[in-house]
Amino acid sequence: MVSTKPEIGFCGLGAMGGGMATHLIKSGFPVTGYDLYRPLVEKLVAAGGKAAASPAAAAKSAVFLILMVVNSVQADSVLFDPEVGAVPALRHGATIILCSTTPPQYLKDLRQQIDKIAKRPDLRLLDCPVSGGSIRAANGTLSIFSSGSDTDLDNASIVLEALADPLYRVPGGISMGSIAKMCHQHLAVTNIIMASEAMGLAAVAGLNTQAVYDAVMTSKGASWMFGNRVPHMIKNDWLTVHSAVSIILKDAGIVTTHAKLSGYPLPLANAAEQLYVAGAFAGFTKLDDAAMVRLYLPADDSDLVGALAEAAGSAEDGVSIDTIVDILAGMHLASTRECMAFAEHIGMDMELLRDIISKGAGGSAMFDYAVQQMLKAGCSLKAVKDAKLVRDRFEYALKKASGLRQALPLATTALQQYYFDLGR
Amino acid sequence: MVSTKPEIGFCGLGAMGGGMATHLIKSGFPVTGYDLYRPLVEKLVAAGGKAAASPAAAAKSAVFLILMVVNSVQADSVLFDPEVGAVPALRHGATIILCSTTPPQYLKDLRQQIDKIAKRPDLRLLDCPVSGGSIRAANGTLSIFSSGSDTDLDNASIVLEALADPLYRVPGGISMGSIAKMCHQHLAVTNIIMASEAMGLAAVAGLNTQAVYDAVMTSKGASWMFGNRVPHMIKNDWLTVHSAVSIILKDAGIVTTHAKLSGYPLPLANAAEQLYVAGAFAGFTKLDDAAMVRLYLPADDSDLVGALAEAAGSAEDGVSIDTIVDILAGMHLASTRECMAFAEHIGMDMELLRDIISKGAGGSAMFDYAVQQMLKAGCSLKAVKDAKLVRDRFEYALKKASGLRQALPLATTALQQYYFDLGR
Repeated sequence: MVSTKPEIGFCGLGAMGGGMATHLIKSGFPVTGYDLYRPLVEKLVAAGGKAAASPAAAAKSAVFLILMVVNSVQADSVLFDPEVGAVPALRHGATIILCSTTPPQYLKDLRQQIDKIAKRPDLRLLDCPVSGGSIRAANGTLSIFSSGSDTDLDNASIVLEALADPLYRVPGGISMGSIAKMCHQHLAVTNIIMASEAMGLAAVAGLNTQAVYDAVMTSKGASWMFGNRVPHMIKNDWLTVHSAVSIILKDAGIVTTHAKLSGYPLPLANAAEQLYVAGAFAGFTKLDDAAMVRLYLPADDSDLVGALAEAAGSAEDGVSIDTIVDILAGMHLASTRECMAFAEHIGMDMELLRDIISKGAGGSAMFDYAVQQMLKAGCSLKAVKDAKLVRDRFEYALKKASGLRQALPLATTALQQYYFDLGR
Repeated sequence: MVSTKPEIGFCGLGAMGGGMATHLIKSGFPVTGYDLYRPLVEKLVAAGGKAAASPAAAAKSAVFLILMVVNSVQADSVLFDPEVGAVPALRHGATIILCSTTPPQYLKDLRQQIDKIAKRPDLRLLDCPVSGGSIRAANGTLSIFSSGSDTDLDNASIVLEALADPLYRVPGGISMGSIAKMCHQHLAVTNIIMASEAMGLAAVAGLNTQAVYDAVMTSKGASWMFGNRVPHMIKNDWLTVHSAVSIILKDAGIVTTHAKLSGYPLPLANAAEQLYVAGAFAGFTKLDDAAMVRLYLPADDSDLVGALAEAAGSAEDGVSIDTIVDILAGMHLASTRECMAFAEHIGMDMELLRDIISKGAGGSAMFDYAVQQMLKAGCSLKAVKDAKLVRDRFEYALKKASGLRQALPLATTALQQYYFDLGR
């Protein structure tokens, strides 16, 4: 049976792209795939796709060319390589769908380059970064933050709807999809460190880490990232890479760079980025980002979180499960404030962002508690009922932890924001 | 009398460049000066220089073309402007001396651009960033970090020696002068915030700020920046701009960007940069950087440091002069460690850097105390005798201050480094 669905060229068949391409095949699209790493192309062929030996070959008969490469450098190479680049090979009026997370400014540069240097103003370009991980990629249930002209988005909806659930359409044209993803990633970036810092403290304090996990997930300290990453920490499994340190480090750089260009201070996101840099410096670049917890553990005891899930630990120095919950809640409220204030400063649609985050990997119990209050009364801790109570419990928890001399760089940075925002 | 000294073209006649150019005239050099802002050119003419209406006019008969512009964007414009750029106008074999502080990578890009795009490989290029402020600029006693080929440096020594005391020759060729300056600026960047944070705390605690200043300067909390900036804070004079927030913000960006490119974590420098971004966001961009203390003062009481220098304050909540000294000492030791470890990572000549910093604006009592120990035993807090004692006093001082709920973001970030480095 000949498919009636439009032909797809797919470049970048890694954990995310491979799943997406395979799902498109299952959904009836003819897919021609390319990756630098040949076994990934063979895997796609085994799933029913066609192999392309170059980006140009993948582009040749594509109505939609999807890019799920690591970063803007790879996207440039796929599109504009002088020998085998995709752009010259694309047919008139084809659509490039960039699903990689890149700096928002890149999209505008890319449009310019397609128009002025490659002289292909006929090509359509959609800015469609995704969120949700490899399992949702394979199931066609990614969050996709799509932006571009309405005509081009309508035209591509058959493909985007096959890949996404939910599919967001971010108003404002090219780059706004990337801005939405970037705002969301602010919380992804900070919340992974928060989970790491909290579990590192719990382990060093000798708490039962499984009990901490269970209690946090039904408390005001809960977050999507805590729920997702802590089980990896408890398994001591850093080699099954769901999402690598290198990826979240790149995302952190996109957030902090855009904020600097916008003249907006993000002390929490920058502190978190420095911790990823420290993680990369310690050799974690290719590990699952749950390995960030090891930055907080003694070098000779890097499996402590897992060990304490089995043998019940006995708390030291007064650090209890409540201490961990209060520190997480204090951090999450501060990062919610920072994220939403930044998003407002750069002109993001705030209601849409609230919806994206509350359903996404950046969500947390404190986000859900605080965000509506901030949208009504301003993106300040002052707008949040009981912010002083959160601060008081946060302070008290850090005081309890202080006897351990455990590094808590993001927590202590977060506490300072209460002092700046709420005064004495 | 006709001067026998070589002709100088000078672009950028602001607080630094104007003083340098005037000093060259006094030293017998014929100087032709250019600045976008015409009154600065007239001032140079009044001092005995010649006016140039464009960079090309300043370059025309110059043996040495000195650039003391704000940043690399201005340097590009002065050198390569298609209408009036200096490079095409320079005579064969002339020397460009770049004194502006720019990213180290810029020097290499600049050499490429001169050779490949402007096709002037005959031109010599020296990388000569400076330190020391406008008074030393006018006196010919700047610290200059010169790098380039030895021949070109020897050839330019008549000019460099007229401007500098001390004149450093940094081995390793183009960009190493900028790397030396960058390493030094790490401490300039952090130490200004440390002075601001400490004096903000002293004022909010109600201490007599003049007494704090006097005591700190003879203590282990002393630093060059504290000695230089705190008198401006006490005078509440932010409008007499010795060095603007915009300049130190740019320098901070050079440090943090280079560190990221090198994969090296700098939590203190990044935390400091975020505070400059917050200062700029609060409207301090054009003020003297001593205005950074206002970030730490109540909005309705921004002159508190000055007010408390006259009326003797009474300390609150147990914060004493010793508290301030211990916090400063704790911070300076942590930033010394961070700076020297970074410098070592990027291959800086460590003995030379020690010499530069100990005589420069990045110097501090704790730097002098710790640096030789680090050079012998490694750039870790572990290498420093009594580092645990410094930590204990730092911890105790922060505990004393905690009742005030005063934001101390750089201090709390610094304390975490002791926990990472020394363990429990």
